[in-house]
Amino acid sequence: MVEHEPRACDAALARAFEFLGKRWSGVILGSLRQGPAGFVELRRAVGGISDSVLSERLVELAHAGVVVREVEPGPPVSVQYRLSGAGEALVPAMLELSAWARENLPQAEQA
Amino acid sequence: MVEHEPRACDAALARAFEFLGKRWSGVILGSLRQGPAGFVELRRAVGGISDSVLSERLVELAHAGVVVREVEPGPPVSVQYRLSGAGEALVPAMLELSAWARENLPQAEQA
Repeated sequence: MVEHEPRACDAALARAFEFLGKRWSGVILGSLRQGPAGFVELRRAVGGISDSVLSERLVELAHAGVVVREVEPGPPVSVQYRLSGAGEALVPAMLELSAWARENLPQAEQA
Repeated sequence: MVEHEPRACDAALARAFEFLGKRWSGVILGSLRQGPAGFVELRRAVGGISDSVLSERLVELAHAGVVVREVEPGPPVSVQYRLSGAGEALVPAMLELSAWARENLPQAEQA
């Protein structure tokens, strides 16, 4: 059987979904879209995430270069998280996705 | 302590990442961006997915209304999958994400 044209796999898109689709990662980035935040504020915004998982995700996101962790020497010492340039570059895509979901993904049904 | 302004959680964005971040779902949609495809062609394009998982994902995506399954009576009967209107509406966001990942997410390191 002759294949007309092999369909290319969009490896970059696959990487994006793998990275952002990891539970909480996308939501954390979405929260930081609104500006820098401390740990407690972020935890509250994300909702339902444990301290340890939020810490772990922030380390991963910082390692990937999309989030910056900034320590302001105190007293009291304060730690803030913000989007890096690469993180900010993701904002248009996040806005598109959010608008798409509002239109096309229904909210979970009320029980 | 006074909170200045509670940071809103973008529930729609969270839904989008939960939906698209499910392993393979986003990649399947990305493959269908290039036009309708049969099961075998899709499996080849996605790469590394089993028949049963691909079937399951296609059922979920059709149920969510983003993919349409079309049966052309034969003989031989042929089944094609394509993006629905809601699926097509996701294309701009996918293009943004893909471009962002090419720029900002390095490919897995070579061993």
